[in-house]
Amino acid sequence: MARIGFIGLGNMGLPMALNLVKAGHDVAVFDLVESAIAEAVAAGAQAAPSAVGAATDADFVVSMLPAGEHVRALYLDGDTPLFGVLKSGAVAIDSSTIDAATAQAVGAAAVAAGVAFIDAPVSGGTAGAAAGTLSFLCGGSAEDFARVQPVLDVMGKNIFHAGATGAGQIAKACNNMLLSVLMTGTCEALNMGAKAGLDPAVLSEIMRQSSGGNWALNVYNPVPGVMENAPASKGYAGGFMTDLMVKDLGLAMDLSQQLNAPVPMGSQARALYSMHKAKGHGRLDFSSVLTLYADAD
Amino acid sequence: MARIGFIGLGNMGLPMALNLVKAGHDVAVFDLVESAIAEAVAAGAQAAPSAVGAATDADFVVSMLPAGEHVRALYLDGDTPLFGVLKSGAVAIDSSTIDAATAQAVGAAAVAAGVAFIDAPVSGGTAGAAAGTLSFLCGGSAEDFARVQPVLDVMGKNIFHAGATGAGQIAKACNNMLLSVLMTGTCEALNMGAKAGLDPAVLSEIMRQSSGGNWALNVYNPVPGVMENAPASKGYAGGFMTDLMVKDLGLAMDLSQQLNAPVPMGSQARALYSMHKAKGHGRLDFSSVLTLYADAD
Amino acid sequence: MARIGFIGLGNMGLPMALNLVKAGHDVAVFDLVESAIAEAVAAGAQAAPSAVGAATDADFVVSMLPAGEHVRALYLDGDTPLFGVLKSGAVAIDSSTIDAATAQAVGAAAVAAGVAFIDAPVSGGTAGAAAGTLSFLCGGSAEDFARVQPVLDVMGKNIFHAGATGAGQIAKACNNMLLSVLMTGTCEALNMGAKAGLDPAVLSEIMRQSSGGNWALNVYNPVPGVMENAPASKGYAGGFMTDLMVKDLGLAMDLSQQLNAPVPMGSQARALYSMHKAKGHGRLDFSSVLTLYADAD
Amino acid sequence: MARIGFIGLGNMGLPMALNLVKAGHDVAVFDLVESAIAEAVAAGAQAAPSAVGAATDADFVVSMLPAGEHVRALYLDGDTPLFGVLKSGAVAIDSSTIDAATAQAVGAAAVAAGVAFIDAPVSGGTAGAAAGTLSFLCGGSAEDFARVQPVLDVMGKNIFHAGATGAGQIAKACNNMLLSVLMTGTCEALNMGAKAGLDPAVLSEIMRQSSGGNWALNVYNPVPGVMENAPASKGYAGGFMTDLMVKDLGLAMDLSQQLNAPVPMGSQARALYSMHKAKGHGRLDFSSVLTLYADAD
Repeated sequence: MARIGFIGLGNMGLPMALNLVKAGHDVAVFDLVESAIAEAVAAGAQAAPSAVGAATDADFVVSMLPAGEHVRALYLDGDTPLFGVLKSGAVAIDSSTIDAATAQAVGAAAVAAGVAFIDAPVSGGTAGAAAGTLSFLCGGSAEDFARVQPVLDVMGKNIFHAGATGAGQIAKACNNMLLSVLMTGTCEALNMGAKAGLDPAVLSEIMRQSSGGNWALNVYNPVPGVMENAPASKGYAGGFMTDLMVKDLGLAMDLSQQLNAPVPMGSQARALYSMHKAKGHGRLDFSSVLTLYADAD
Repeated sequence: MARIGFIGLGNMGLPMALNLVKAGHDVAVFDLVESAIAEAVAAGAQAAPSAVGAATDADFVVSMLPAGEHVRALYLDGDTPLFGVLKSGAVAIDSSTIDAATAQAVGAAAVAAGVAFIDAPVSGGTAGAAAGTLSFLCGGSAEDFARVQPVLDVMGKNIFHAGATGAGQIAKACNNMLLSVLMTGTCEALNMGAKAGLDPAVLSEIMRQSSGGNWALNVYNPVPGVMENAPASKGYAGGFMTDLMVKDLGLAMDLSQQLNAPVPMGSQARALYSMHKAKGHGRLDFSSVLTLYADAD
Repeated sequence: MARIGFIGLGNMGLPMALNLVKAGHDVAVFDLVESAIAEAVAAGAQAAPSAVGAATDADFVVSMLPAGEHVRALYLDGDTPLFGVLKSGAVAIDSSTIDAATAQAVGAAAVAAGVAFIDAPVSGGTAGAAAGTLSFLCGGSAEDFARVQPVLDVMGKNIFHAGATGAGQIAKACNNMLLSVLMTGTCEALNMGAKAGLDPAVLSEIMRQSSGGNWALNVYNPVPGVMENAPASKGYAGGFMTDLMVKDLGLAMDLSQQLNAPVPMGSQARALYSMHKAKGHGRLDFSSVLTLYADAD
Repeated sequence: MARIGFIGLGNMGLPMALNLVKAGHDVAVFDLVESAIAEAVAAGAQAAPSAVGAATDADFVVSMLPAGEHVRALYLDGDTPLFGVLKSGAVAIDSSTIDAATAQAVGAAAVAAGVAFIDAPVSGGTAGAAAGTLSFLCGGSAEDFARVQPVLDVMGKNIFHAGATGAGQIAKACNNMLLSVLMTGTCEALNMGAKAGLDPAVLSEIMRQSSGGNWALNVYNPVPGVMENAPASKGYAGGFMTDLMVKDLGLAMDLSQQLNAPVPMGSQARALYSMHKAKGHGRLDFSSVLTLYADAD
């Protein structure tokens, strides 16, 4: 079993850390919120007094933080950057969803410091984090990827190697931008069909079996009542919040700008989610963008 | 076996008619192109001297025409509208892809004339027409749908009842609009990933297994070389032409306008396909829209 | 003075006809609404029993109708098409805003019938119709344009010759599509500036004097209170209704589809106006699209 | 006359500095490119050995740098931040076009250091810089604005006070985003009209006098030959490069993301300019986006 430092015990981080504990790893945790540490300790983790404390002597560090600036501060810019603390041969795994440029800058600094770094953002939400069924999209060398795989297997189901450092963040940005396109496209097709008098469940089934089939339509139908377990049938509660989709689309736009990769569909989806958020629906599941299309009550 | 009049022996109509012949039906065919009639006759059909000739005494008429104006002329406005010719109890099946408003107007006239009408546009392309594996999206009463099902089963695999008259056209417009969104969204995600250095095959596989999964990505990858049998790997030849997608998106815009159903994503896809066609690529498969995004050579 | 038949006495047609009467022309009017005829008669026009009656012996016919189908019925398809009634040398002026294809079809029929036809849609609204300050965008031969100019001068201020038959409708579709782009673009720039803390009046003035200057910003500011006389400062009442902008954008999309002219910006503006209308604001002035961008109350 | 330190002698900075020299100011210049310093010295400026040297004892510092990171390094993060060097009462004027967040961070640091800061991005291009006819969009206190006005008057014609610190950058981002919308909207209206057979010069004149009037149409027509002095008539050379418009639209997207201000039209224009740049036209004037719409040769 490995010694693992886990930094960031939020809605995603805490259940991920608990799965590492359950698997028998020796896990030292740190977060700014003491109650989160207490919860992890109650499950068998050890409390670390600081991020540095969690990283000292660790074989692996896993970080799960809100944004690029926090990741940059942890590994590069803070008072005691972790790359100066980690023992030789240790691997830092950053599972935060951040911009690829920061992931690449952190990865370059890791190389300079003689430690390994893998960017490994996840998808699957809090439910996947609890169940240990997350997908991990990893960027880094094949060798480092092979080393982290057993650790990630404990927290996830699909562990993908997307390419070199930063590729995990890039793959996630591409995937989530595409997801936003699938969801908005599905919403407007179903809304138009319904305005024309078609039953959304019937139209959904037809398109699902035809060339309109896609993840949003197939497993996450945005029309209330069509799928019993979809957020749409539960008042758009839970699921993947509009606020998070807006954040991810911002990262996709940054990438588009840096690479000069044209993304007219992703830009359009971002505009729609931005309008939906501006109307006060940031905390609803992202399939609630259907209401943006709907007629006034 | 039924007596069937078949009108319109183009790239789609001819193989559809041949499947009816093969199934043992008594098929009288008409087209303005004599060589098409000759081909059907060689396979066992009877030549009719006119559309009226093909329809006289038929149990079913199947029409497969280019646009709404032709369907309107055949059944309503021409010199001898078929609804004045069909025997009582006959069913007219229009498999043309046309605007829903025309389908509804023709359907209303059928009711007035005491005959049945089903709008039944198809998807599946010329390959599906030849193999008898088309999807039929049908609009009409449940009773009439039940009557045409055995006839359509001979030409297709999935026979859907979308709703009342016109619902077949509406479902097709919704589906194909959504398909255009899936394809363009997939293209730009893959293009951005590739510009960032990711292998398109790897990124495709990751998104296919994640929430970016969709028909275009899963079975019709637009990047040359990723899927051996996709049009992208054959110089974008064959498949579903950009020109036809532009036509279908025009029908979707008409529907959006009539219903005032907002379709920002479909509108965006139409704009992109229109640009792609303007650049001279109308006859390439619709997955070739990838080249619109690509860097100049 | 000329004998003029005027057909269509709606919100625009009636004041236009009255200006012809005031100028001393001999005007015979027809409309399906009798009270409109009565109002025109009270001002000095003669009541005609039918469109045919208004057109018989006229030097000019002016038509002001809601849509292409009405224009087509009047001149081409109705029981007694006017082109069979007009005396040789008469000129038909259609000031309806309709699709260019219908205008061209009607114009071709006029040539065949030996009479002249000018498509002459207007801009300027009901206020311009009353004041005689409309703009007329005319399509037809230079010779016919020269003949109608004195008649149009009585009802308008700017009389443009856009080109051959249909060019008036095309110019109007292009102009109004561009206007929708100017208005939505102005709204979102002002909304973003205001969210960042800038005074909309200050930002408006800066952009007006810079390269952001445009008709919507300069004379029709969409932010309440910035311009005293703009519809925005009067609860978005009056002006040019969202419903009419949506109609005009539908005509522009038809044109784009027929010509395969890509219009991504116009398509985007149409999507936004369609959403705005779906939310119940069809009868507000088109500058009210600002509220689509605004935060929820 | 004032002592002015000028930092950044690029295509814009050098002619701006020369106008300060011509007006009689005592100007110390610094740039990393020695030939630029030499050119300024030949015109009467003094060479400074470093940015710090240029700023020491200055009444005003003017900086004209490529991006936010350079401005941040100069005033905040570099080895010797200028705010530690400037004498009490000095004013720093940053005329770079950068993100508002950086301008606000720099402004806050200026307050902390007891010096004044004005963000003052310009528009008007290299021609305006040479002629001293730039527009300055300023953010800062009314008092500080009043102090810098005489200095800016020497380099520009319109000196606007947009609001508090950062407001200059915000106003510029809003204006240039709107400009991109005007240009693309104008291009597609003119392209559609031309495809329909209208003369672009005639259609331009009609829309200019109608509600389609806007800066791009009125003074910067994108169709070659319509305006003799527009970049379009000179092979799209000179003017405002596509690359710069793409940069400015990136700043606008950042602002939109931070404020959650929906910008569907600006997003669309960014997508189009990104495609245009990807096709290899980054160094052409931004009105060349017309060619993106045009049919293949």
